Amino acid sequence: MAQYGSRLIVPIDVKKKPWEQKLPLHNRWHPDIPPVAEVKVGEAFRVEMVDFSGGGITQDYTAEDIKHAEPSIVHYLSGPIRVVDEDGTPAKPGDLLVVEILNLGPLPGDEWGYTATFDRENGGGFLTDHFPCATKAIWYFEGIYAYSPHIPGVRFPGLTHPGIIGTAPSLELLNIWNERERELEENGLQTLKLCEVLHSRPLANLPTTRGCVLGKIEKGTTEWEKIAREAARTIPGRENGGNCDIKNLSRGSKIYLPVFVDGANFSTGDMHFSQGDGEVSFCGAIEMSGFLELKCDIIRGGMKEYLTPMGPTPLHVNPIFEIGPVEPRFSEWLVFEGISVDESGKQHYLDASVAYKRAVLNAIDYLSKFGYSKEQVYLLLSCCPCEGRISGIVDSPNACATLAIPTAIFDQDIRPKNKKVPVGPRLVRKPDVLKCTYDGNLPITKNPSTST
Amino acid sequence: MAQYGSRLIVPIDVKKKPWEQKLPLHNRWHPDIPPVAEVKVGEAFRVEMVDFSGGGITQDYTAEDIKHAEPSIVHYLSGPIRVVDEDGTPAKPGDLLVVEILNLGPLPGDEWGYTATFDRENGGGFLTDHFPCATKAIWYFEGIYAYSPHIPGVRFPGLTHPGIIGTAPSLELLNIWNERERELEENGLQTLKLCEVLHSRPLANLPTTRGCVLGKIEKGTTEWEKIAREAARTIPGRENGGNCDIKNLSRGSKIYLPVFVDGANFSTGDMHFSQGDGEVSFCGAIEMSGFLELKCDIIRGGMKEYLTPMGPTPLHVNPIFEIGPVEPRFSEWLVFEGISVDESGKQHYLDASVAYKRAVLNAIDYLSKFGYSKEQVYLLLSCCPCEGRISGIVDSPNACATLAIPTAIFDQDIRPKNKKVPVGPRLVRKPDVLKCTYDGNLPITKNPSTST
Amino acid sequence: MAQYGSRLIVPIDVKKKPWEQKLPLHNRWHPDIPPVAEVKVGEAFRVEMVDFSGGGITQDYTAEDIKHAEPSIVHYLSGPIRVVDEDGTPAKPGDLLVVEILNLGPLPGDEWGYTATFDRENGGGFLTDHFPCATKAIWYFEGIYAYSPHIPGVRFPGLTHPGIIGTAPSLELLNIWNERERELEENGLQTLKLCEVLHSRPLANLPTTRGCVLGKIEKGTTEWEKIAREAARTIPGRENGGNCDIKNLSRGSKIYLPVFVDGANFSTGDMHFSQGDGEVSFCGAIEMSGFLELKCDIIRGGMKEYLTPMGPTPLHVNPIFEIGPVEPRFSEWLVFEGISVDESGKQHYLDASVAYKRAVLNAIDYLSKFGYSKEQVYLLLSCCPCEGRISGIVDSPNACATLAIPTAIFDQDIRPKNKKVPVGPRLVRKPDVLKCTYDGNLPITKNPSTST
Amino acid sequence: MAQYGSRLIVPIDVKKKPWEQKLPLHNRWHPDIPPVAEVKVGEAFRVEMVDFSGGGITQDYTAEDIKHAEPSIVHYLSGPIRVVDEDGTPAKPGDLLVVEILNLGPLPGDEWGYTATFDRENGGGFLTDHFPCATKAIWYFEGIYAYSPHIPGVRFPGLTHPGIIGTAPSLELLNIWNERERELEENGLQTLKLCEVLHSRPLANLPTTRGCVLGKIEKGTTEWEKIAREAARTIPGRENGGNCDIKNLSRGSKIYLPVFVDGANFSTGDMHFSQGDGEVSFCGAIEMSGFLELKCDIIRGGMKEYLTPMGPTPLHVNPIFEIGPVEPRFSEWLVFEGISVDESGKQHYLDASVAYKRAVLNAIDYLSKFGYSKEQVYLLLSCCPCEGRISGIVDSPNACATLAIPTAIFDQDIRPKNKKVPVGPRLVRKPDVLKCTYDGNLPITKNPSTST
Repeated sequence: MAQYGSRLIVPIDVKKKPWEQKLPLHNRWHPDIPPVAEVKVGEAFRVEMVDFSGGGITQDYTAEDIKHAEPSIVHYLSGPIRVVDEDGTPAKPGDLLVVEILNLGPLPGDEWGYTATFDRENGGGFLTDHFPCATKAIWYFEGIYAYSPHIPGVRFPGLTHPGIIGTAPSLELLNIWNERERELEENGLQTLKLCEVLHSRPLANLPTTRGCVLGKIEKGTTEWEKIAREAARTIPGRENGGNCDIKNLSRGSKIYLPVFVDGANFSTGDMHFSQGDGEVSFCGAIEMSGFLELKCDIIRGGMKEYLTPMGPTPLHVNPIFEIGPVEPRFSEWLVFEGISVDESGKQHYLDASVAYKRAVLNAIDYLSKFGYSKEQVYLLLSCCPCEGRISGIVDSPNACATLAIPTAIFDQDIRPKNKKVPVGPRLVRKPDVLKCTYDGNLPITKNPSTST
Repeated sequence: MAQYGSRLIVPIDVKKKPWEQKLPLHNRWHPDIPPVAEVKVGEAFRVEMVDFSGGGITQDYTAEDIKHAEPSIVHYLSGPIRVVDEDGTPAKPGDLLVVEILNLGPLPGDEWGYTATFDRENGGGFLTDHFPCATKAIWYFEGIYAYSPHIPGVRFPGLTHPGIIGTAPSLELLNIWNERERELEENGLQTLKLCEVLHSRPLANLPTTRGCVLGKIEKGTTEWEKIAREAARTIPGRENGGNCDIKNLSRGSKIYLPVFVDGANFSTGDMHFSQGDGEVSFCGAIEMSGFLELKCDIIRGGMKEYLTPMGPTPLHVNPIFEIGPVEPRFSEWLVFEGISVDESGKQHYLDASVAYKRAVLNAIDYLSKFGYSKEQVYLLLSCCPCEGRISGIVDSPNACATLAIPTAIFDQDIRPKNKKVPVGPRLVRKPDVLKCTYDGNLPITKNPSTST
Repeated sequence: MAQYGSRLIVPIDVKKKPWEQKLPLHNRWHPDIPPVAEVKVGEAFRVEMVDFSGGGITQDYTAEDIKHAEPSIVHYLSGPIRVVDEDGTPAKPGDLLVVEILNLGPLPGDEWGYTATFDRENGGGFLTDHFPCATKAIWYFEGIYAYSPHIPGVRFPGLTHPGIIGTAPSLELLNIWNERERELEENGLQTLKLCEVLHSRPLANLPTTRGCVLGKIEKGTTEWEKIAREAARTIPGRENGGNCDIKNLSRGSKIYLPVFVDGANFSTGDMHFSQGDGEVSFCGAIEMSGFLELKCDIIRGGMKEYLTPMGPTPLHVNPIFEIGPVEPRFSEWLVFEGISVDESGKQHYLDASVAYKRAVLNAIDYLSKFGYSKEQVYLLLSCCPCEGRISGIVDSPNACATLAIPTAIFDQDIRPKNKKVPVGPRLVRKPDVLKCTYDGNLPITKNPSTST
Repeated sequence: MAQYGSRLIVPIDVKKKPWEQKLPLHNRWHPDIPPVAEVKVGEAFRVEMVDFSGGGITQDYTAEDIKHAEPSIVHYLSGPIRVVDEDGTPAKPGDLLVVEILNLGPLPGDEWGYTATFDRENGGGFLTDHFPCATKAIWYFEGIYAYSPHIPGVRFPGLTHPGIIGTAPSLELLNIWNERERELEENGLQTLKLCEVLHSRPLANLPTTRGCVLGKIEKGTTEWEKIAREAARTIPGRENGGNCDIKNLSRGSKIYLPVFVDGANFSTGDMHFSQGDGEVSFCGAIEMSGFLELKCDIIRGGMKEYLTPMGPTPLHVNPIFEIGPVEPRFSEWLVFEGISVDESGKQHYLDASVAYKRAVLNAIDYLSKFGYSKEQVYLLLSCCPCEGRISGIVDSPNACATLAIPTAIFDQDIRPKNKKVPVGPRLVRKPDVLKCTYDGNLPITKNPSTST
């Protein structure tokens, strides 16, 4: 009789702190973090994970935990997981690791999540120059659906996915990362004028021993010190995959990850019940703990066979993936356009980031006419299954980006009509998101066309 | 008995030159270009159009017409069309003009199109620093499908749409456009470092009397001279809609356009049989002549009711639209990721344009392993129904963009497999795209990781 | 330069009568009806067709033409079309003829159609024992959409298809048809108790010279007399395809038809702008004139290779087909169940026809609560893109059938709610369908549970 | 802080026998079976269930358990569950009970299922006259996917659903059922000629004390005896819902059930990992144990408001439902047609059951050319997500039914091609389904056209 079900290789007890878990977690990328488990190609296995904050952000109805969150401790990852073939030979640098997501979801008994924007001094978000305050909304799950007491009138099925899945970098790749990000942090404000528009956010997050957790490597040892000083932070997605926050990496999808170290040593974390393209509010998906059921395969020599490096070294590659067959299905979408002219009226050159910012701002203002606060819409667009598209990227000087919102997630008809938007008490959506004051002193961008 | 069918208000004879058409065309945006037709809300009407080049680009199997195309003559538009309500009162500034696309398609007897990249000195494309030569592929239509002798092995149903639909700007809006684009052209190279990556393309296309066509305004008159000198070029999408190149603006969709002048005076053109998100090769959709069947409505005062200006004036708005119910349906997608690190290895800051460029380059190299030339794939990704997404825009410093390609358009299985990509004579896809030499002297970006 | 566009091989002038067309039509199946055109495999060609009644049913706002329609003249078909390979060798008996539908639609200038139920003495429909009167609704097309002044409040995109496409039968097959249908007509009422439920309709439609049209065979000749006496009527679908009324045989689909005579000699007609599964009202799709763009291929020996006869002879086969990529897309459906217990409360044994009848009756009564007459709903369900499923066919004694209706076609929310169905003047849908009196004397089935 | 997660109201321990469960199960419909749990409208709750056979059918690689299965013990149901509103007032006869399926799936640790056909003497299936033997295939689940060692080369995502969900009947309704089914069993063979085609199956399954399980009613008591003698068997779907085997009643769908007794007292069971329309092999879905997360609402007076009785009493109604948003998505389908002519060549009259039988037989023979045994295909079509449609039900005398199969579930291309079906060793799919001999003596239908 055949075996069935998946083998639990990384268990999580959500009642415990990250450092109390049976298998140690980690929150950095480094080749020397030892694997905590090993799997064979073809076997189904289960990986559980804490939420990205390791429980630091709570169910409490306050945004104080968001305002004072410590960025250095993110993201708590499960793994590394070493992958070997049927003969026990590990994946080798140059191979492709195929990871199939057989299933995934919240952990039983922990069916809730949160969406938030950090305080601007603390990480901010895509629109942090408009929305500098820390805010938070709690979501509860009813099976496939999420709803929030803080954003009433919407409910949607989750397109659940891990925000992070990535292989361990080699030392060579790690050095490339650290170097290019350091260069940006040091010289970015002068040379990268994009920062004029997205100006107040940290440019990069360089290695720091602060908050560092390295799995089986014991804190305080020489080894720990060395690794902690050079290990890459987990915030950006990179050549190894990592925090790509791709909302379609859901049930039934397959990801092809480059292998840089023996065994591939992949890690995963940052589970999202649902996310919109762009994850605009930064802590912007519905963040939760969760589980993945996975199956691996190894394509020997697959990096060379299937990935062409695009950059100075053979390591400059990116993962590819296939979308699964059970995404939620919507047929009616309201779409907002944005072009690369910023809120001050300044013309940017084919800048899709500015164009998308504009599309998101347009959508926020539009939906706020239907009884929502702008903060509610900002969080909603960050976590609902909306699609962000690069529609035109060649028509100088304007990039054109679009944000498509499925109309079925609302309990009212949000399409423009040949009559006024209905107003009145029934549309006052109370309560609002949880919110802190902004005590910083960075300038706030006002939309010059509105008085509010 | 009721009336049915749509009234032909702008006829086109594709055997004639643009200036020989029954109703005059135009290729600039200006409030003083007089309407050529009037429609009532609720009536179905038909607008025909030449291809964007007005026949300048031909079916001939050569790319010379692309290399020597004159940018100042694009895009030949049909219109302006004045819209009035049931009582004959025209749309007014501040209203929303609702245009529903009842149907659209190629003109009977003219069922072909082309995709091209301009020479780098002549307009280039998104990847012009890699692909500096003018290239062209001819496509033939078989009902809903397109195929090309120059890109064998693919066939796909069209998601047909007008690249351009927009209302006439007011003089105030026109001045805003001209001012901000002039500022960019004058100071852009110094201040907008994005140009390092997309460096060799024209920054903006300012008004010019060269090639200018102004509908009923007779060339050589004082009026013509005045308008021609201030009328905006049609290349970028702007507040009035215009050349947004949104591939989903197809059958059954509805667009809500702001009205800036009496009658709305909307124009349309640049029909695309199919286009990928981004239209990366610039002359990148399957360009063709075509027809639209439309129906209009007016939402009185709708700009204020539904659009919030995002910028210094009440005119800084963008259109919104609803997607129609009959888009081609694909269920299997192969997806390429890109992050905002450029080909030299340089780290950019949350730059979705760079990330998308990287995703497109990744896809081109990948598909070229299956028997295609890179030029073939570049043109293919520009015109097939692929989706370009802004997946992550907050994980400093890397934006993450994705390019999703429907696998069903290929006559071979393009997914990675646990064996080598099949090679050999059967995969040599001949002939290639039509191609000219590049005679310019701008530096060409080489992918440092490849020798080809 | 390549050729493009499709060659018109069967032109129709809708202002002319069926017998005045340039190429003669036919309304019977017989091997000796000579082809009117020949096509090569691989070439795109265009076939135009009259509506199934050849113009006998008009746009007039009356149902009299329905009540007095002559059943013997249906369906006027275009063809036969002879198919040869690249070498000019015709398709042979035993081959499979592949017909790809490249495109299709209404004829330009004739963008209207009708849905009807015949009078019960004249053909009736699926529910003719409940709805004995002739009724008619006129539909007008706005591009992809249809709307009817007689069924207000609904509009939907067409899933357009030819009701009939089939190859010519061999004489042997023709004899099989005539024999088995004659047997049914002669003995059916005694032995087939299904007729208790669907009791008042003609059991079969045997060959008749009345109304017979045989293409190039001149009426009055001996040959005509002979063929007319044995040629099969076109009403039922059979081994050759024919009137299968499959609503998904639309743009981009491919049908594999068995070949019974040299050249395949296929014919097509009975174009439907849209139809619901079952086409319940019989004259039940939105009937119209139209055009098809087609491309053929021949699979030599394909009948044996791909079709297994299921019956006493090698001719007892059925076509297979593939669905195209551009069907209208709906995501919300309201579904009605029915079981095989009839309106008198009698239990039938696993009878999917009775179960489906029940599901349709349930849906009609449900929707009539939203301001429609039952006749309006009957016609609507016959022609809108609803899906009829055999959900359970094994749970003795009840078959379970379902009818799924896309909610987006209505201008009101038709889902059950925790409040009363809204009533009042705004829901009185006027006018009603066009209707005649029933002057027959067959008993009418009343729903014992309703007084209306 | 809000509550979240669902309250477990019916727990199941799959290691225990049905009669050892904490809350007693039942396998009959009767108003006097007492509820085992109570829920309030709006609360999320979890119901677990055994597989329909209560563990009688095992994972063993033999079909003996199928051949000797005892029909009287099916289906073990969880419930009845009493539903009350916020004030504690129970649902009342005449109300509509709204049950929303928030989530569902296999029980953790029990991720396997089976598909089978009973021996013909023991229940048979839709094609039992062709396939008289008991057969079985075991399926294992990998997250969303199922695969079977007995039907290699296919894998598909589950459209999981409960085969049975229904409210308790009133005594009046129960009597109606028993009467009409007894009438059928007593007189059916004489009057219902459909039985000629589906001839050897039990006509109805009347009440029997044998194998009867009645929840809290203790076996052996007078009450038990009385109820057991009149309680309806669970095999057919009826007015109360019940065993409707509707494959689309999956995640996110809502069912509206009529209420016949105080509290509604609904029960559910017979979980299916996946099923094809029709569930043709009878024990034909992938049968498994499982869980449902549900939420209820009550529409007071909803039966009258929304359901029209179709029959002699106000109880002659059927449920309606809405389809959920996360069904697996397929875009390519191969479709088999069938008409109402049976395998002997006999013409039936508009008989959708015969037409569907023919379509299924056509599909089985077709797919058996690709390396499968006919028994493998029969089981596969019974449980894979194929769609059975009533395409035409009016074109006398032929009903036309279609069976659409998603091509993506196969690891080979099953579409007809212009070359032979590949043959040879690689296509020998071994092992076959598990199979018993048929020891009965009913005549077997042979397809006259085949020698095998």
